[in-house]
Amino acid sequence: MKITKVQTTVVAVPDPPLRNVNGVHEPYAVRVILQVHTDDGVTGLGEMPGGTRFKAELDAAAAKVIGLNPYHTEWLRELFPDSPRLWSAFEVPCLDAVGKATGRSVSDLLGGGVRDRVPFSAYLFYKFATPDGWLETAAGTPKPWGEVGMYGWAAEVLTPEAMVDETAEFVRRYGFRTLKLKAGPLPPDEEVRTLRLIRERFGPDYPLRIDPNAGWSVETALRLLPQLEEIGLEYYEDPVRGMDAMAEVGRRTELPMATNMCLVGFKQFPEGVAKDAVQVVLADHHGWGGLWAMKQCGQICRIFGMGTSQHSNSHLGISMAAMIHAGATVPGLIYASDTHYPWQQGWDVVNETFTFTDGSLPVPTAPGLGVTLNQERLGRLAEIAAARPSERRDDLGTMRRWFPEWEAKAQRW
Amino acid sequence: MKITKVQTTVVAVPDPPLRNVNGVHEPYAVRVILQVHTDDGVTGLGEMPGGTRFKAELDAAAAKVIGLNPYHTEWLRELFPDSPRLWSAFEVPCLDAVGKATGRSVSDLLGGGVRDRVPFSAYLFYKFATPDGWLETAAGTPKPWGEVGMYGWAAEVLTPEAMVDETAEFVRRYGFRTLKLKAGPLPPDEEVRTLRLIRERFGPDYPLRIDPNAGWSVETALRLLPQLEEIGLEYYEDPVRGMDAMAEVGRRTELPMATNMCLVGFKQFPEGVAKDAVQVVLADHHGWGGLWAMKQCGQICRIFGMGTSQHSNSHLGISMAAMIHAGATVPGLIYASDTHYPWQQGWDVVNETFTFTDGSLPVPTAPGLGVTLNQERLGRLAEIAAARPSERRDDLGTMRRWFPEWEAKAQRW
Repeated sequence: MKITKVQTTVVAVPDPPLRNVNGVHEPYAVRVILQVHTDDGVTGLGEMPGGTRFKAELDAAAAKVIGLNPYHTEWLRELFPDSPRLWSAFEVPCLDAVGKATGRSVSDLLGGGVRDRVPFSAYLFYKFATPDGWLETAAGTPKPWGEVGMYGWAAEVLTPEAMVDETAEFVRRYGFRTLKLKAGPLPPDEEVRTLRLIRERFGPDYPLRIDPNAGWSVETALRLLPQLEEIGLEYYEDPVRGMDAMAEVGRRTELPMATNMCLVGFKQFPEGVAKDAVQVVLADHHGWGGLWAMKQCGQICRIFGMGTSQHSNSHLGISMAAMIHAGATVPGLIYASDTHYPWQQGWDVVNETFTFTDGSLPVPTAPGLGVTLNQERLGRLAEIAAARPSERRDDLGTMRRWFPEWEAKAQRW
Repeated sequence: MKITKVQTTVVAVPDPPLRNVNGVHEPYAVRVILQVHTDDGVTGLGEMPGGTRFKAELDAAAAKVIGLNPYHTEWLRELFPDSPRLWSAFEVPCLDAVGKATGRSVSDLLGGGVRDRVPFSAYLFYKFATPDGWLETAAGTPKPWGEVGMYGWAAEVLTPEAMVDETAEFVRRYGFRTLKLKAGPLPPDEEVRTLRLIRERFGPDYPLRIDPNAGWSVETALRLLPQLEEIGLEYYEDPVRGMDAMAEVGRRTELPMATNMCLVGFKQFPEGVAKDAVQVVLADHHGWGGLWAMKQCGQICRIFGMGTSQHSNSHLGISMAAMIHAGATVPGLIYASDTHYPWQQGWDVVNETFTFTDGSLPVPTAPGLGVTLNQERLGRLAEIAAARPSERRDDLGTMRRWFPEWEAKAQRW
């Protein structure tokens, strides 16, 4: 079995004006879709964050991958020793291809799932009302198909009270139990008040998280600690920037400190362990090196007394499937995984739909990842991407389109 | 695909009177051979150290394993949370069965080999001349078939000069380049003199190791350090007992400290890392939890700046094959692996023979592990085991049969 051809396609998927500490999401998030063809006649699918620049990197790398046996994913690390993103980009389609060739799910190939369903968290964003023209491109590309995403994009959510309503809608629609507040846009005290209102509305059985994307000072993070401890958090995610600051906050609380910002790869474990910087690692198969890397990460976390969960960026169904297989097979993954999927629901490049029940998704049992490519939609989202080339989300620049005076601040509060 | 039946057989394999710091090997080493049958009609093979007690443990565990999908090896950790030996015992046959069912080698299933041949080291033992009656059992079981093992068992090797001859024979027959001296039987200065003679005979291109099985005091280990550094060692293996003592010696030398005695499982990594106790981990798939565990161990070692190699006990061809697949697929395994195989050559339960060339073995490419069971030999070695039940090698008791005054000493020199 050999790889004969690699096709990469940049797509753009509509995104609401979701707020964070840096600014606001762009109207479209870009992803690269991979189709890895083999001489067995099966094609493995992959999806990575990135735009035309990353596509070019993938296309250059593809030349080295032609002829590789898709079973031999360890070779990807030899071929591209310093790029976990490239390992991941090709490993997932290889696993998908092997699964399709043997009639086995990716979970089976990863040693089997240790759970049948994977719990996800509600990813709660403050957001602007969607402005007119948000989805139109400069080149006049028409709107994509389907329903306009999650929770009426038109609505503004910029107060604690509005966020409670958004949360209720997430819980009603999808049954999420774990509730994660993307913090940073409002003054920190307002965001803590948001959490308090959510706790009052949903009671003690809904684990809460808050993630200011390292936009708070150590002083702010510590000042709010008593209130956060009283409200009760499952973990305190990246309130501050860097391992030293995280460790400083962590020393003052029993709340687990979680990160997808200061320990974001295997090479950082020694420093993280030595400093006891975090207690929960939010890993991401796109950046950590693939699905086997997720298992390795979970194993290392367990050995060193840390928990593991999954970080998420705006994504489509191929990555959704990959995240479910990871969530099913990483043994120490005891926390609900993050996902932006509800915000993109209604647009996808796969034919399958993912229906959350009780906040969780069943593990696909079909061969490979369990998803099939919808070529028509792939073409449509590729057209949109072609009309508005982009490499990665520019939250700051997008914010400045509405608020020219908006300042870049690594530490806003 | 489901497991339908598990057969376990205790076998005894002849062993020469090899010396170590505790005493001398018994005439037979015991192993348990596993045959894991599936409803696909394929049978996976396994081999583990242990005798009738471990067989009983395996038989009890087998009840939980019936019905398991051999792809779902991660479940073994859920079923037997505290027993890496049980994970390994069943994981290897599962991988063998999946490989046979799909026509893929175990290396392929492990992500593909990163090398085509796996280097091994010459395992050099001081030894007694083989006494008359060494292989006869109390019950009168006949001698096994075949050639009497490696390097004329009858010969005594109890001096530095004799050891140089033994080394020459290992190099001549198998092309080994890495030379490992099992130390402990002679006074330490004589063993260092042995190493010096080996270095003089073979020159600078043969990496040397010395392994006193933690039988030296810190004082002895440090006193000999200048000579060992001058002779040049690839690594200094377990001269002393425990992480603290290993770290103490390690702080005084640039030689890497290696172990299969003080860091022997994943749970010990945090202490090992914190103390910088060792620089090379000699892992063993039998004890670490299987072949995937070997990859995880290699990954963790690489992350924390350590090297990895493979520890060995007296073994047969199933374990030999498993060790080659591990050696082929563990990415950071940069040292030649240990193996006792030459000492057992001539007796085996598999039909295949392993021929060392330039000290290395080619990675089997046949489905699964690449070995097939010889039922007649299995029966023969099982008869021998039945006639002399044993659980694990009793070096001390065996020594006392010849030298009743021999004392048990954890730290002999």
